[in-house]
Amino acid sequence: MMRLGILNRLCRSAVFCSDWTVRDGVTTTMLTLVRNHHVPSDRFKDYGIPNASWNPDMMALYRRYMAWTEDGSWKRLPSYNRALRQDRDPESPNRLFTRNTDVEGSCFEYAMFLNASERRILCIFQPGPLLEGPPCHTHGGAIFTLLDGVAGTCAYATMGPVLTANVNVNFQSPVPLGSTVLIEARIERVVDRKIFMSCLITSGISPKVHVDGSMLFIKCLGSGPANGK
Amino acid sequence: MMRLGILNRLCRSAVFCSDWTVRDGVTTTMLTLVRNHHVPSDRFKDYGIPNASWNPDMMALYRRYMAWTEDGSWKRLPSYNRALRQDRDPESPNRLFTRNTDVEGSCFEYAMFLNASERRILCIFQPGPLLEGPPCHTHGGAIFTLLDGVAGTCAYATMGPVLTANVNVNFQSPVPLGSTVLIEARIERVVDRKIFMSCLITSGISPKVHVDGSMLFIKCLGSGPANGK
Repeated sequence: MMRLGILNRLCRSAVFCSDWTVRDGVTTTMLTLVRNHHVPSDRFKDYGIPNASWNPDMMALYRRYMAWTEDGSWKRLPSYNRALRQDRDPESPNRLFTRNTDVEGSCFEYAMFLNASERRILCIFQPGPLLEGPPCHTHGGAIFTLLDGVAGTCAYATMGPVLTANVNVNFQSPVPLGSTVLIEARIERVVDRKIFMSCLITSGISPKVHVDGSMLFIKCLGSGPANGK
Repeated sequence: MMRLGILNRLCRSAVFCSDWTVRDGVTTTMLTLVRNHHVPSDRFKDYGIPNASWNPDMMALYRRYMAWTEDGSWKRLPSYNRALRQDRDPESPNRLFTRNTDVEGSCFEYAMFLNASERRILCIFQPGPLLEGPPCHTHGGAIFTLLDGVAGTCAYATMGPVLTANVNVNFQSPVPLGSTVLIEARIERVVDRKIFMSCLITSGISPKVHVDGSMLFIKCLGSGPANGK
């Protein structure tokens, strides 16, 4: 496993250094610093589960994908508010960008589901009112932020520590605030240390495409796959 | 000027529908809804000016670019926390993603400077602790968010209402939280309704490159340039 100092220097994007690993089919939660800059929270609160702000479409999709986890092929990933693997600085005000508030429904509401053998990830996402870009619609940056996180998580989970090298995305239609969207990313091919991924964001209730594109991650030198394969 | 309803349907990204226009060389602040979901704030607070959280590098760059505004070739752009042109729903909890907190220094601290005749924009940016991605570094999504906003603002200011169609960026080196970076974007060419832009993010105190790339915006049908040219 890479030392944190090395990871600090190499990492370029968001969530490839996540809070869990998949080893021998078992998802293991790593020691994680949980800190809320605004409101005190549990140190190890898992934000990737439903709360009162979730709309009926989010709940329906959550139940659908939770059903997929029953045979072990898919796993819901826990989601914390800091990506540190070690609780080295409990006084740090730093928080993961996508989990930087405890006000339910205000920013990023999401849950991720991983199929490690298919090298594929799904994420259901409900953007809150503090993510506005165009009036009453989600900021393109907020959409990109979660897309980067979801794809990076998939790459990390299956290939080990990675860094984002390139992102090429097309914005096809706006995402209304409060709606439910489905983010999907998968590893298309691996060439040496290069991990080529595709990504797609659609409406959670129809095939309407919001965003499509591709991403390139680079596997960090000397790191093994997170799933031990 | 496009009607808000049309803009709502057409807009795909963040800040191309901003709160000001440049007409005959005069920057005009539009009627803007200013609303703070967490802490009450002035309705028309301009966030694009220094506060106590800004580090010395931010202050030095701010003073440098403010000096450039003295001959009128550059303009500092005011920055509010909602992009609505009309105060149609003062009770809305919606807030611009990059201005969704009043806790100084915690998220996006930035100021934008526009040279309309050169179709070029500069932005000084200090990422706060709530924008974390890799430990102690800025989330790639946060960097992308402001890049989208800055480039879109330049396109809007010089060409009128636009929408983001494609973004292709390379992440070259991580951005430490609390550091100062310089975002630059410019219009390279315009072909019919297509606006091709280049973008570059460097350290505010050295030539070190963090991000480079290109963006494509599409000019909305029937809209005139914001600067009246």
